[in-house]
Amino acid sequence: MTAKETPRGTEKRCPVSIVTDFGTADPYVGIMKGVMLTINSQAVLVDVSHDVSPGAIREGAFILGASWPFFPPGTVHLAVVDPGVGTGRAPVVLAAGGHFFVGPDNGLFTLLLDAFPGASAWRLEAGAYRLPRVSATFHGRDLFAPAAAWLSRGVPPSAFGSRIPSLVRLPRAVPEPIPGGLEGAICHVDRFGNLVTNIEAGVISRGRWTVRLAGETMALHRTYGDVASGRFLALIGSFGYLEVSVNGGSAAGRLGVGVGERVVLAQESQD
Amino acid sequence: MTAKETPRGTEKRCPVSIVTDFGTADPYVGIMKGVMLTINSQAVLVDVSHDVSPGAIREGAFILGASWPFFPPGTVHLAVVDPGVGTGRAPVVLAAGGHFFVGPDNGLFTLLLDAFPGASAWRLEAGAYRLPRVSATFHGRDLFAPAAAWLSRGVPPSAFGSRIPSLVRLPRAVPEPIPGGLEGAICHVDRFGNLVTNIEAGVISRGRWTVRLAGETMALHRTYGDVASGRFLALIGSFGYLEVSVNGGSAAGRLGVGVGERVVLAQESQD
Amino acid sequence: MTAKETPRGTEKRCPVSIVTDFGTADPYVGIMKGVMLTINSQAVLVDVSHDVSPGAIREGAFILGASWPFFPPGTVHLAVVDPGVGTGRAPVVLAAGGHFFVGPDNGLFTLLLDAFPGASAWRLEAGAYRLPRVSATFHGRDLFAPAAAWLSRGVPPSAFGSRIPSLVRLPRAVPEPIPGGLEGAICHVDRFGNLVTNIEAGVISRGRWTVRLAGETMALHRTYGDVASGRFLALIGSFGYLEVSVNGGSAAGRLGVGVGERVVLAQESQD
Repeated sequence: MTAKETPRGTEKRCPVSIVTDFGTADPYVGIMKGVMLTINSQAVLVDVSHDVSPGAIREGAFILGASWPFFPPGTVHLAVVDPGVGTGRAPVVLAAGGHFFVGPDNGLFTLLLDAFPGASAWRLEAGAYRLPRVSATFHGRDLFAPAAAWLSRGVPPSAFGSRIPSLVRLPRAVPEPIPGGLEGAICHVDRFGNLVTNIEAGVISRGRWTVRLAGETMALHRTYGDVASGRFLALIGSFGYLEVSVNGGSAAGRLGVGVGERVVLAQESQD
Repeated sequence: MTAKETPRGTEKRCPVSIVTDFGTADPYVGIMKGVMLTINSQAVLVDVSHDVSPGAIREGAFILGASWPFFPPGTVHLAVVDPGVGTGRAPVVLAAGGHFFVGPDNGLFTLLLDAFPGASAWRLEAGAYRLPRVSATFHGRDLFAPAAAWLSRGVPPSAFGSRIPSLVRLPRAVPEPIPGGLEGAICHVDRFGNLVTNIEAGVISRGRWTVRLAGETMALHRTYGDVASGRFLALIGSFGYLEVSVNGGSAAGRLGVGVGERVVLAQESQD
Repeated sequence: MTAKETPRGTEKRCPVSIVTDFGTADPYVGIMKGVMLTINSQAVLVDVSHDVSPGAIREGAFILGASWPFFPPGTVHLAVVDPGVGTGRAPVVLAAGGHFFVGPDNGLFTLLLDAFPGASAWRLEAGAYRLPRVSATFHGRDLFAPAAAWLSRGVPPSAFGSRIPSLVRLPRAVPEPIPGGLEGAICHVDRFGNLVTNIEAGVISRGRWTVRLAGETMALHRTYGDVASGRFLALIGSFGYLEVSVNGGSAAGRLGVGVGERVVLAQESQD
């Protein structure tokens, strides 16, 4: 395709998932939705989260990485956590795993890049796929929402601009082996106060394990109801990672810990 | 229909309302929506509330009971407030009032069962209508969202599994007659601080009534603006129950009371 | 058209944007959506904000005024911030700028009326376009949502009732000229703590300007990243108004100010 071609695609049903740090009180998300429906009236807009902490790229990356695999192939994922709006960071579209991802190149796509190292990305350059006037402070409205809507019409990502050889990847804390186990960290706290660690289910071999966190020691169980109400437990959570929870309560509240706290997974001695 | 049949229905427009305690910051709701759109790309997903207090089954039952009658017949209502996930409580579909309800059998459907004592329910058993791997901690994603989406395609509820003769029903506090009136309780506090009681509009006969709550006495009015700004009043609220309010303010905040607080409705003496 | 005609329109895709002060925990918004989908199953319901402060008409007017221009022509905007529900204020539909607006005539449409002084408005009177029973406390459900849904089917606004010659317009604080500049005020604080003023971009001529607010003085920049992290700046924000911000922080939090605070824009002296 030459640079002169500007394919328009056709209006059609296509899910567009949305992750932002815009909150739901201000009109920012509604404005992006209006922009998208103006371009593709058939787009199926799905809020994933707008409550990413302001400017928290790593948190946005986690939400995006956890949710996209459950959408149908061809879904467009619009992710805008963009503290560097209007500066040099590139606005991009990424094609990975049969899905499309639109947002700023600031590390938001780290989990995608980890999973699909060979994924292709393009810079959002073409004037045909943005609003006529692009502000310096709201690229979600002016660049990213229009790009997501044009993608949802079937415009190929290569039509948006030039290839970018590599995107920004945030360093990820990985669990470290220690004698008899692993030392990891809390990487997400959910609404229930469940503490999600960075220790993947796959690394936990058969055997009996205990988990130590903030002075508490708990056994590994299958689900919350396996312990009495109000008791601590560890389990493999729905994200596929080790979690620390309280049955019927908030582990985060009870332990007073949050993201970054160290957690130890240790195999019980066999004596 | 024999157990071997697995009807697939067809993708079609059908509203699916959603009530959960998942909040809107985590990706849980977005994940359920992705799962549903993968099964029925035409489903019309409608958030009713995701802010039910964590694990508060009774609160979820209230929200569900208050909202479903306003949806069109055939709507699927997905309700997930599921503190017992992964334990023995059954995952079910309920057919009642021309609508379908999907969720855990833990009391969430109490108001439906009160209104439709003869309603039919089935256990979610069929492997064809769930995700390939079912976790022990997120049945919203693995069991309930898939079931809701298959129902929205027109799969009959009887295809999901065996009949359940009766579902869990939470005891409901009913107002008690007292000399000259009724003693009820606050059962919901809304965003405006309106205090919704369990005293139904229908039991309030003609005549002059006063309401006593937490030391305040107020008259029964038609709407907020019938009293001066900042004044207490009682009225029949939009749920069809007696409510206590402050015009332009929060009755909950002013009185410092919440769910469970006793309220007295008394007929004014005629002297 | 005579008063006897009740056009029904046809079910069709049409965006309906929604602004309310109902919050997202209670079932009020879900109920309105159920009502609308019952009338037009093809309506495309778009939440703009439900977190307008309870009864804050001016805040609702800001959210509505900021969002509607980004929706496609023909969109129906349902706005319900209605502290006077059930009293004399009229329920209306307004046709302006190629869009339709439905809600109470209490000042919510002020920005529309400022922009389109010749816009036409009709009172919602016709019994055919409301729920069979109209409560005194929830016109969002009984009057406004039905009207929005019928409009989305193509029913002309003139079918709803009689023309209203003029709607309520809230007085707006406009910036006042002072020696060497303008004195304005903060009119909105967003989730990031950005302080949006009522000083329009258009009035700021070329030259060097400084902004003074709550004892801080800042220069006018293009975007957040133009100053070091943690530093104050002023810029033309995405609403088209002067804003005061902190790069990577909350200006509202740092200055401890909110809506109504005075702000001065002054041309730097040339010496």
